Amino acid sequence: MKPVKVGVLGLGTVGGGTVNVLKRNAAEIARRAGREIIITRASAKDLNKQRICDTQGIALTTDPYEIINDPEIEIVLELIGGAGPVKDMVLKAIENGKHVVTANKSLIALHGNEIFAKAGEKGVIVAFEAAVAGGIPIIKAIREGLSGNQIEWLAGIINGTGNFILTEMRDKGRDFADVLAEAQALGYAEADPTFDVEGIDAGHKLTILASIAFGIPLQFDKVYTEGITKITRTDVEYAEQLGYRIKHLGIARKTPEGIELRVHPTLIPERRLIANVNGVMNAVLVKGDAVGPTLYYGAGAGAEPTASSVVADVIDVVRALTSDPENRVPHLAFQANALVDIPVLPADMFRTAYYLRLNAEDKPGVLAEVTRILAEHQISIEAISQKVPLNNETSVPIIILTQITLEKEMNAAIAEIEALKTVSGKVNRIRLETLG
Amino acid sequence: MKPVKVGVLGLGTVGGGTVNVLKRNAAEIARRAGREIIITRASAKDLNKQRICDTQGIALTTDPYEIINDPEIEIVLELIGGAGPVKDMVLKAIENGKHVVTANKSLIALHGNEIFAKAGEKGVIVAFEAAVAGGIPIIKAIREGLSGNQIEWLAGIINGTGNFILTEMRDKGRDFADVLAEAQALGYAEADPTFDVEGIDAGHKLTILASIAFGIPLQFDKVYTEGITKITRTDVEYAEQLGYRIKHLGIARKTPEGIELRVHPTLIPERRLIANVNGVMNAVLVKGDAVGPTLYYGAGAGAEPTASSVVADVIDVVRALTSDPENRVPHLAFQANALVDIPVLPADMFRTAYYLRLNAEDKPGVLAEVTRILAEHQISIEAISQKVPLNNETSVPIIILTQITLEKEMNAAIAEIEALKTVSGKVNRIRLETLG
Repeated sequence: MKPVKVGVLGLGTVGGGTVNVLKRNAAEIARRAGREIIITRASAKDLNKQRICDTQGIALTTDPYEIINDPEIEIVLELIGGAGPVKDMVLKAIENGKHVVTANKSLIALHGNEIFAKAGEKGVIVAFEAAVAGGIPIIKAIREGLSGNQIEWLAGIINGTGNFILTEMRDKGRDFADVLAEAQALGYAEADPTFDVEGIDAGHKLTILASIAFGIPLQFDKVYTEGITKITRTDVEYAEQLGYRIKHLGIARKTPEGIELRVHPTLIPERRLIANVNGVMNAVLVKGDAVGPTLYYGAGAGAEPTASSVVADVIDVVRALTSDPENRVPHLAFQANALVDIPVLPADMFRTAYYLRLNAEDKPGVLAEVTRILAEHQISIEAISQKVPLNNETSVPIIILTQITLEKEMNAAIAEIEALKTVSGKVNRIRLETLG
Repeated sequence: MKPVKVGVLGLGTVGGGTVNVLKRNAAEIARRAGREIIITRASAKDLNKQRICDTQGIALTTDPYEIINDPEIEIVLELIGGAGPVKDMVLKAIENGKHVVTANKSLIALHGNEIFAKAGEKGVIVAFEAAVAGGIPIIKAIREGLSGNQIEWLAGIINGTGNFILTEMRDKGRDFADVLAEAQALGYAEADPTFDVEGIDAGHKLTILASIAFGIPLQFDKVYTEGITKITRTDVEYAEQLGYRIKHLGIARKTPEGIELRVHPTLIPERRLIANVNGVMNAVLVKGDAVGPTLYYGAGAGAEPTASSVVADVIDVVRALTSDPENRVPHLAFQANALVDIPVLPADMFRTAYYLRLNAEDKPGVLAEVTRILAEHQISIEAISQKVPLNNETSVPIIILTQITLEKEMNAAIAEIEALKTVSGKVNRIRLETLG
């Protein structure tokens, strides 16, 4: 068969990595796909910039639309990123009947519903394996590998920067701000780290995972996000003493009342495999009703890990070129007309366990007051421990682990505890999941 | 579209689990596949036997060929197991133009080349996700998810019984024979445990994984297998002291000289995620040139985890019913005409590190002799430690970790060490992999 001609938009980290992998592994890829896949054109903002890839044999342009409108190009790789002008490029490529492969999580999370609807009309594929967890084939695993299951929940370490920071805090007893500065110097974290440390990036990825797990539309605006900026060394150490690690998780769970979509720091038992995923690595734990828990681990970012997913998508598309558009793997794992708008729960209705840390005066009766408040809100205590006051402090840290409770009740109880005269400052609250 | 009619051969653990999952999740599966998938017929040896599944609505027979020859059946699920009469059933189903889904590792490992050739001629699919690592979608991950990579090596815990035994030995300081007896009582291990503990079962699975990773024919007869029967509590404990766990791994590695295919007990650093895969769980670590290391973890056996993979295959087949047979995902990940017969290396040519345990007389000069022999065989020592003799023993255990060396040299060195007058008994040798 004739080679498939591919056009690449963007020659940065992911674009450059993709060019390198497609060139280096061309022979192996042709052995798999049954035909050659060649990049004939690529666009970049600045053609004089130093690249990580060799662009020999590739016609370069600064205008992405030259590629999008080129009738010879069958597959467009959108590797520019961001949800700005890129959306129109992707829609135009679809309009032109081209298949699209993208690594763009915010594009899919924010505009995926519109993009997939358009792709459905035109009978083309928009593939996005690289948008979540870099090189881990997690989209394929959930969408196809676990397709016989009802997915009950999933929990993922899906932001490498955040995991690097938490790992360093634990392993080396360092402070958040200190590690963040290093991550920025190493290039793991952006100059504006908000997307990473506040959970926005993880929220985009969780939006996508939840959609393919439960067959619901993409709805990033309903994801609860809480960052890791308030995690202290103290909490990391207390968690450790109790047999837990603190990880920044994206969690999607189907409950009888609706779906929980939440990104937040979470205590998880250290014996869980996912608690031992360290540094910039990603992992996603998926619980299906038939298969039980399964875990997928690998590099969540970087030029070639991301390219690995982009190229896998390209090969999938090449295989589907001759297929019946009505009988392909649906974009969001479920048939477009079978997506169900199950309600996404507000944070008040989350059900989870908690770690609480509060500072109380070293006086009799304080514990009695705190436990009375928890009991009044139907919150059962799993463990409680009073720490030795440091130096000359008159207040003592109290650590409480609760059983699973309604978040609304927990918030009300915390407000009452904070109002106690014997308790100083805020109650530090971190959610806890056993992931059992 | 009309429902797809499926026939099931075998209603034991996997067959029963598959019936249960396909029935329970019928609505969810139809939302994904775009049409109903129904089991209309099933065969079993004894129709009066108690089943784990509800067979209402399914026409039962004792003759598998009634199903294989039924023109209404589009997909045959071979869930009988074993490589005996089942081979003819699968070939006949293919001959009749039916797609086949099987969970049968020995069938694929021993007769896959013939089966896939026949399937290729007839333009049908033979899917076998459930044949390796139960519910983990590892075949799909390697074959499709990592298709942009050159796979460099993979290492898997792919026999749950063996891993259960090694986990118990480590966690509870128990002996091999004792744990094996319990595993048999619990139903994890067969009455004849040879397949599990001698690495035959893992060898079948490794054969399949290696084929889809490297694009080589299936060749079980070239797999080196070594069981876990000689692993002692002592070795488990010494490994632990050195920061390692002993796991029974299936390893496939591409080297410039050829391919290593080996199943054997292996010391691996305890900080590796795969070292922390415990009990009956399975995990496969795959190293691709672009993606780096990725890991896949989940239940390696059991009715519903295995059914999860069977049903996923069925849905894949349903989606491919309308596709061009020439442009499907190839059975062994690479186009049938692109498989390459790379030589499989004999054990003598393996390159790996080693853990050695030997008993030496407590006399000066013994260590000098042992290290001289290793040096003469170009074997570098990574660590050496002499243990305190127990009770009144006059010999002392010596533990040596070597760097990577040629197995042939190691065997020669061991023979010379065993011939030393100051060394008593055999040298206990366990391979060591850092999996870095």
